[in-house]
Amino acid sequence: MLQIGLDAGGTSTRATVVTTDGECVGYARSSGGNPISSGKIGASSAILDAIESALTRANATLSDVSVIVAAMAGGSADDSRDWLIEPLADRDFTGTVAWESDLLATYFSGTFSSFGYAIVSGTGAAVIRVEDGQIARTSDGLGWLLGDAGSGFWIGHNVALAVMSDIDGRGPSTALTPRLLEALGISTEGARVQGRSPALPRLITALYDMRPVQLAQFAPLAFSEPEDAVSRGILESAGSLLAHSVEAVHTENGPLVIGGSVLAQTGRLAETFAARLAAQGIEPAIVRVADGAVGSAVLALREAGVDITASVFRRVTDSVARMR
Amino acid sequence: MLQIGLDAGGTSTRATVVTTDGECVGYARSSGGNPISSGKIGASSAILDAIESALTRANATLSDVSVIVAAMAGGSADDSRDWLIEPLADRDFTGTVAWESDLLATYFSGTFSSFGYAIVSGTGAAVIRVEDGQIARTSDGLGWLLGDAGSGFWIGHNVALAVMSDIDGRGPSTALTPRLLEALGISTEGARVQGRSPALPRLITALYDMRPVQLAQFAPLAFSEPEDAVSRGILESAGSLLAHSVEAVHTENGPLVIGGSVLAQTGRLAETFAARLAAQGIEPAIVRVADGAVGSAVLALREAGVDITASVFRRVTDSVARMR
Repeated sequence: MLQIGLDAGGTSTRATVVTTDGECVGYARSSGGNPISSGKIGASSAILDAIESALTRANATLSDVSVIVAAMAGGSADDSRDWLIEPLADRDFTGTVAWESDLLATYFSGTFSSFGYAIVSGTGAAVIRVEDGQIARTSDGLGWLLGDAGSGFWIGHNVALAVMSDIDGRGPSTALTPRLLEALGISTEGARVQGRSPALPRLITALYDMRPVQLAQFAPLAFSEPEDAVSRGILESAGSLLAHSVEAVHTENGPLVIGGSVLAQTGRLAETFAARLAAQGIEPAIVRVADGAVGSAVLALREAGVDITASVFRRVTDSVARMR
Repeated sequence: MLQIGLDAGGTSTRATVVTTDGECVGYARSSGGNPISSGKIGASSAILDAIESALTRANATLSDVSVIVAAMAGGSADDSRDWLIEPLADRDFTGTVAWESDLLATYFSGTFSSFGYAIVSGTGAAVIRVEDGQIARTSDGLGWLLGDAGSGFWIGHNVALAVMSDIDGRGPSTALTPRLLEALGISTEGARVQGRSPALPRLITALYDMRPVQLAQFAPLAFSEPEDAVSRGILESAGSLLAHSVEAVHTENGPLVIGGSVLAQTGRLAETFAARLAAQGIEPAIVRVADGAVGSAVLALREAGVDITASVFRRVTDSVARMR
């Protein structure tokens, strides 16, 4: 029989088909598969697309599949999962469908250790401690309004705040200001209004027209101006906040799996992150992963009763890499 | 002829009818008159209600009125003002309608000096420097997402952040946590989920169900726990941020008019605000005002060509106080 791991994110979904030996025989990507960001219909359509394409590559059908594990963010046990279970049943799938955290899929993309840590900082940010292969503690992951400290949203929001303070005269001048105005196509021409740059009301309109979480798109501006004092301050603060989230769940030594675009960048943020952890005596073996594809397959194998040994884990990792 | 000053806020509107001598002969309150928060229909209905009630008290009609000045937040010169001008024309009003900043109405509620400062910290926060009776500089007032540093929103948001950090284990324990949970009717009973308090997902759901600006409702929790270290830190930071916004526009000495609920409270916030300003050599004569009613009437008189002398200003202030 085959197992399918689904790594269903806000912008893309990965379906990974593995044999019980851990050999990846099918892999496909589709669009966003998280029902919170894509809606239930959009998410189920994306997930079914990915499953179908991956099974086609594997020369298999759903009747060959015993277990599907869907790894995704934000699902609580109370939410109905019929949006995915029903269309699978309509396709005569009679196996098991199980849900797992996307953070755990990230973790098992980097290690098969039953104890360790994972941190993901993309648009949002969260850290987990894994014990006995399960999430024992979570830190942050609370969303843009209440947390996600050091995330892409956090950095982009702080870029916007720094630019507003610069233009407003409450904060220091920063190279981020012309960068943000350029990114939004905002001109500084025109007369000052009540002592303020004419760019200010344009910037206010442009930024409030976005959904707040879209401010994450300005995070790259901070990374592109590492010599600017304001930008450097934002990057260092983000690195510190991410390290702090790790410290909050850290007990004993274990591998640290790192996912998401923010900590994938080298420079001040990553350096501050590592230095702050080291100052707390935390110097883990670090494994960087691109996504949760391998981990979702590992979770599907585990759900099917397969013992995840070093050789199984290695086979999944190597064969997924070949299929991408 | 009579003049009407309108102080149109998000939650209430005040119409003040004054003679050319500055004698208040009519005054009335109604509901929110800002088109951004109440919609154009709601705002025009509230404003017309207030005008009608105030004129009834004055035994007058719109035909006795030469000037109406509407003081409100957030209106840009580009926005159509037909939502108020047309219904006034429908009621045969043939005088002048002029728009002013609500911050300037706050300023002129406290002083008739042609030079000085006003700070308002309610749900939002902003500072102005007034020169020759006009706004020469503004600081902050950029809304909950991009500014309003030290405002009621800022305090309430920081209360929520501190509680999330406490429950999440990233921040210190704080007395604000049981207060916020109680305010939202959230129980801490039940099993821990992935190492987290069962209150956490309930709190996340409750807070994301609000419009962000509604977090301002939790600002009073910070004021009610002045001995708690976390709460005290929030109040002191808010006081510092408000002082910083004053410093950003400060040139020479002038009176400082203070409006809004945040700086109306005595305690750590107000003390930090005053101490930080004093440390910068800024120790202005402070005038506290409840709203912009007097100032909107002063602006209406000025629009009608009346010279605002000390005795006119005194007459407006005293007669408005009697009419409330």
